[in-house]
Amino acid sequence: MAIETLKAEVARTFGTPAVVIDLDKVERNIARVQALCDAAGVANRPHIKTHKSPVLAAMQRDAGARGITCQKLGEAEVMADGGLDDILISYNLIGEEKMRRLGALLARASVTVAADNPVTIAGLPDAAARAGRDLGVVVECDTGRQRAGVETPEEAVALAGQIAGSTGLRFDGLMLYPTEDGWDKAQRFLDAASAGLASLGLTARIVSTGGTPNLVNLGKLKGATEHRVGTSIFNDRMMLACGAATLEDCALEVYATVVSRAGPERGILDSGSKTLTSDTGGGLDGHGLILEHPQARIARFAEEHGFLDLSGCNDKPEVGDVVRVIPNHVCVVVNMVDRLIAVRGGEIIGEIPVAARGRLG
Amino acid sequence: MAIETLKAEVARTFGTPAVVIDLDKVERNIARVQALCDAAGVANRPHIKTHKSPVLAAMQRDAGARGITCQKLGEAEVMADGGLDDILISYNLIGEEKMRRLGALLARASVTVAADNPVTIAGLPDAAARAGRDLGVVVECDTGRQRAGVETPEEAVALAGQIAGSTGLRFDGLMLYPTEDGWDKAQRFLDAASAGLASLGLTARIVSTGGTPNLVNLGKLKGATEHRVGTSIFNDRMMLACGAATLEDCALEVYATVVSRAGPERGILDSGSKTLTSDTGGGLDGHGLILEHPQARIARFAEEHGFLDLSGCNDKPEVGDVVRVIPNHVCVVVNMVDRLIAVRGGEIIGEIPVAARGRLG
Repeated sequence: MAIETLKAEVARTFGTPAVVIDLDKVERNIARVQALCDAAGVANRPHIKTHKSPVLAAMQRDAGARGITCQKLGEAEVMADGGLDDILISYNLIGEEKMRRLGALLARASVTVAADNPVTIAGLPDAAARAGRDLGVVVECDTGRQRAGVETPEEAVALAGQIAGSTGLRFDGLMLYPTEDGWDKAQRFLDAASAGLASLGLTARIVSTGGTPNLVNLGKLKGATEHRVGTSIFNDRMMLACGAATLEDCALEVYATVVSRAGPERGILDSGSKTLTSDTGGGLDGHGLILEHPQARIARFAEEHGFLDLSGCNDKPEVGDVVRVIPNHVCVVVNMVDRLIAVRGGEIIGEIPVAARGRLG
Repeated sequence: MAIETLKAEVARTFGTPAVVIDLDKVERNIARVQALCDAAGVANRPHIKTHKSPVLAAMQRDAGARGITCQKLGEAEVMADGGLDDILISYNLIGEEKMRRLGALLARASVTVAADNPVTIAGLPDAAARAGRDLGVVVECDTGRQRAGVETPEEAVALAGQIAGSTGLRFDGLMLYPTEDGWDKAQRFLDAASAGLASLGLTARIVSTGGTPNLVNLGKLKGATEHRVGTSIFNDRMMLACGAATLEDCALEVYATVVSRAGPERGILDSGSKTLTSDTGGGLDGHGLILEHPQARIARFAEEHGFLDLSGCNDKPEVGDVVRVIPNHVCVVVNMVDRLIAVRGGEIIGEIPVAARGRLG
């Protein structure tokens, strides 16, 4: 089997654990999202938190993405270093150190940031002044997810007014992350906010929505201008569970070795919480799907041990077997490694640095 | 307050999130473990998985540690690069890539590895041959934790025989990781294994135990020669919960900024699962202890958001506040960052690279 040859080649060349991406699937996933955005008449602004790689961001741009989304300033710096531009940092940036860096970034790239409170906004003119250039700001709005984001249209409008009245800041629009069943609520929020903005003489040039599971909702929000998706470039067990992806769409696998079979119903993978992470993917049972042994349960972790419960497994893996794991949550797994092994057509074709790995600030 | 000055200085210099260690506490923790090992008459072989830093490993060595423990070969390579020697790799190493690297490491450092199965042992002579030097092997024994490790003394003796009969391998002893209440069971296991070894003409030169919560059990196992501890150098919320440490012993804190207060009972830290990790510390409630607001609950995570439930919190943090978090599990948090900020007496004195971060293989 071709896959056994590939597994042996990856293990021999890089050892395990190894995080492997299939570029054919990656390209298909990129093209699919672009086509969905095109069909819905919204711009595609992929969220690079999933791959943290300027190489992959450039593939998304070249396929038609308008710009990119970053969650942290450090990610945006790496992307700008890699030649990416038109960057939305979807995060409240606060503090002198961040303003120093944001100013330097803004001087060399087109940047928009998000804010959901007056303290954040009050700090941002410092960055604009350092850059000698206006900084775009979108107001983050919460329409039910209880993350960041103002809870009412009135608050959004008030912050837009603060932004528009701040030297060096430009009100760019609204950023939403609707729940999958909450697009009616998002529409009511947006309509009310737009009316309020109009009364201030403001317009939301950007109305940004987000989320891979929300790709099915594209086009539903009248007034939306762009969509942010991260996970869809690779997909994972969480996307399988919610029906947003099939196994054929899963472009990233963690190659792991069975290093112990200490009990007849137990085994140990060389990938624990420092590789696959303890992220349960929103409450999934087990810590990943082993493609060769779907009945094997990754029951718990030590840092470098994945504890396999093989009691439900007819065909049990042996010590030395290399297996492929679809992780629960791909975005946090990529962040554990410095490189992705890229394959195409069953052949290793190179390594892609996870250049923004660990850029937490 | 001195701590407010330090927090402001860390935030201004490095930004948040920042992982900060107090070297006074670190030295006290190192000295405490060394004294406990000395008093019990066992060697101290600290596990560097917690700090992944040759600088800190050298501090442990200089305080009296015999050697070090690494969980992965990549960690051992970094430690050898940093001048550490006498390295126990407490892990089943399997595969051609690992043997190539293990051979190169053995050629330049004194290395012992662990094994719990015949497949692992059968692969190891290749590394010894590459190094032109004998490789020490200890047999990993399970006395109740259901991790790696053979489940019976008979299996341990059989593997010892296989090791002793393998060209280039040297049987070095037994590695145990008793449960905190399982030292009687460990004694019975060790006694039976020792008798079996004697019948083969073998002796366990090393009998290694492990675990920070097991420091209270040092001296209980007759025949033990050394102890492996990781977490005790920093401690964490897990060690607080099990009584193995007090707040005064917690030497590592994650400095984080409150970036949103989107609802009256909610807040958001700039540290999510990509900083504090989703490790629950064995089922603790919440994702860390905020020293300034112990009633605030880090209820859940997005990748870069720590969602605060402030409903039980009289004194609620404001946007822009910098807070200090004791993480649930310190070993996985250190592995998320490239450097630790070192402070002493309330002053920043430098940065310590987490040189073995992400060495998963």
